[in-house]
Amino acid sequence: WCKSLGHAHPAISAAVKKQMDRYEHVIMANTCCEPLVDLSEKLADIAYPLDRVFYSDNGSTSVEVAIKMSLQYHAQSGNPQKNSFLALENGYHGETILTLAAGDCELYSSPYAPLMPKIPNITDIPYVSGENDTRWNSISDNNWSVIESQLEQHKESLSGIIFEPILQGAGGMKIYSPDFLKRLRKWSTKNRVHLIADEIMTGFGRTGKMLACEHAEIMPDFICLSKGLTGGFAPMAVTLTSTEIYNAFYDDYATGKAFMHSNTYCGYALGVAASLAALQVYEDEDIIANVAEKSCELRSRMEYVASETGALVNIRNVGYMVAADIINPKTGAKFASEERTGYKCYKKAVELGALLRPLGDTVYFLPPLNTPDTVLDDLANIAKDAITEVLQ
Amino acid sequence: WCKSLGHAHPAISAAVKKQMDRYEHVIMANTCCEPLVDLSEKLADIAYPLDRVFYSDNGSTSVEVAIKMSLQYHAQSGNPQKNSFLALENGYHGETILTLAAGDCELYSSPYAPLMPKIPNITDIPYVSGENDTRWNSISDNNWSVIESQLEQHKESLSGIIFEPILQGAGGMKIYSPDFLKRLRKWSTKNRVHLIADEIMTGFGRTGKMLACEHAEIMPDFICLSKGLTGGFAPMAVTLTSTEIYNAFYDDYATGKAFMHSNTYCGYALGVAASLAALQVYEDEDIIANVAEKSCELRSRMEYVASETGALVNIRNVGYMVAADIINPKTGAKFASEERTGYKCYKKAVELGALLRPLGDTVYFLPPLNTPDTVLDDLANIAKDAITEVLQ
Repeated sequence: WCKSLGHAHPAISAAVKKQMDRYEHVIMANTCCEPLVDLSEKLADIAYPLDRVFYSDNGSTSVEVAIKMSLQYHAQSGNPQKNSFLALENGYHGETILTLAAGDCELYSSPYAPLMPKIPNITDIPYVSGENDTRWNSISDNNWSVIESQLEQHKESLSGIIFEPILQGAGGMKIYSPDFLKRLRKWSTKNRVHLIADEIMTGFGRTGKMLACEHAEIMPDFICLSKGLTGGFAPMAVTLTSTEIYNAFYDDYATGKAFMHSNTYCGYALGVAASLAALQVYEDEDIIANVAEKSCELRSRMEYVASETGALVNIRNVGYMVAADIINPKTGAKFASEERTGYKCYKKAVELGALLRPLGDTVYFLPPLNTPDTVLDDLANIAKDAITEVLQ
Repeated sequence: WCKSLGHAHPAISAAVKKQMDRYEHVIMANTCCEPLVDLSEKLADIAYPLDRVFYSDNGSTSVEVAIKMSLQYHAQSGNPQKNSFLALENGYHGETILTLAAGDCELYSSPYAPLMPKIPNITDIPYVSGENDTRWNSISDNNWSVIESQLEQHKESLSGIIFEPILQGAGGMKIYSPDFLKRLRKWSTKNRVHLIADEIMTGFGRTGKMLACEHAEIMPDFICLSKGLTGGFAPMAVTLTSTEIYNAFYDDYATGKAFMHSNTYCGYALGVAASLAALQVYEDEDIIANVAEKSCELRSRMEYVASETGALVNIRNVGYMVAADIINPKTGAKFASEERTGYKCYKKAVELGALLRPLGDTVYFLPPLNTPDTVLDDLANIAKDAITEVLQ
């Protein structure tokens, strides 16, 4: 999920080595360094007008930072009653206690309920099969009103809504309509509620745009980025926000308005160097345009596996992600989860030479964005053979 | 705080480059790699009998992992009522919502109270000035009974107690008696309460032992390590625990007992290579023995600054850390916090060539463990000049 440019891209490797010959990491408290300025400017360009950048170590902490900022912003802006959050059904945002609370994955979070704040889920998300789905451009007013009525219950106390834009990852590779985000943006602007876009998995081209929010042409109040940021070399994350939100924290020390959050390795030079090099590769190899063009190639490989095995339904795709659910080809029914059919396919595929990682019985392809077509062929053939052998 | 071996140690740099020429990071879910086995074995040796290692990205997440494991352990071991935690006054454990809740730093945590679980603080910690303090080896029974009565109130519901052993960092560089930990270990074993030692700042030799817990000759149930782990090159953290606790999670998939927590860059090869190289430097340069021997050298530098300025009281030291509090040399009183005397000293010292980072008006030296004496001289002279100029 973090290898958007494949393993060990030589340009990134060279950049990290070069940076290491200068310096490896200097503390970011009250200091700065040139590569960090360069990277911040590049990220601000990508997320414009969100042009304020906060650095942390991983996806979970970048979401924690956004939630903390949203809460503190409202407390300092005359709306301290705005101190609760909502998230989406089937969402996943990390594995710290707060981000587990924002997620919708019982398997990961249920043992920790005594420590978790309550973050309710919005249900009836308008899922789609991809950009050709009739609901991609427009959902029904009825669908929206079911969602809106859930939002309205919380609006007075609501500080922010956390979501993976367009494509939900760990919750099952589910794609939803950009129109939902458009309507959500309108509602949340009207009700002074922040939108926190967790683009940790969707960012950097995965959905065919640099940021998945671009599909909806909306600007959230916070964007969290991680996984692909360093080109898959090392952990790093950022939280981007607007100058308006930044300004609510910028004041004399005595006012106590500062955002007091720091990580030891915040903006460490090796991670920054890797990220700068990765972004350069995006430009040099025209990665985003390539994904948009090749998206159908990836889908066609899953369609091939489906037709050869008769065991895949609900094929859905966006950008460089395609997913489908395994069923029993004889009965058309799902397998019982105890059978762990997806896991068996994983093990068989590894034997055959591909790292499939089904989520339950959902098989998906999420290859590097610069994968050659011949490798996609290999991937499809191995997936086909693995599924066939497991179902025999 | 993370540069235990100084900036950019060449042996670590060489090891990271060599690893990068092999591979930079492979996913750890269901996979492994040789350097990771080597590092896990080395860490298990350091923390023996805590010989089970869990990898994450930073100190905060390593503490979250320990708390989650403790809670889930009790839920799965017939004690689901054990679902609360205690921490120590003046403690600091990170800046995610859960670790802020475990910490005792209003400045960092107060805006986020609506999202934080309650983790009460144990008070009346027996602070000492160092190893020569009469309370270092033994605290009074009276002192302990005041603490014990706090513990007794919570014991039925208590899952674990989180603490920085011996030396509390961000809370003000406070040192406490190892005898407190000895008694705490006895009490918590009797009451089936876990001890979670946050050695993120104290570990890897800072207090003169490889682990600060060694001063008390106790073994906690969890040890968290980070900062110095990679020699200051890149973020990484580990949570160590016992085979007994590990076994409570190890079972067939269907039982749902697994510890379901994973970070994208969990055990990434570059961080592992840096860590292996850093531990080799500890051996080659005999770092721990050096700290024990040089501890008094560091203290003597702070005593020099105190006698030259007349503005430092409460000098305290352990291992390679010495701290003191700035007072008004004319009145003997503390300065008002609004004057930000410590911050002024920081700014002046940077001008003069040293990175002092006072906590409020507490000045401390926390240099790399292999700092030459002549550099300590420079540090002391700059601190003296900075304080003198600020107080003029």
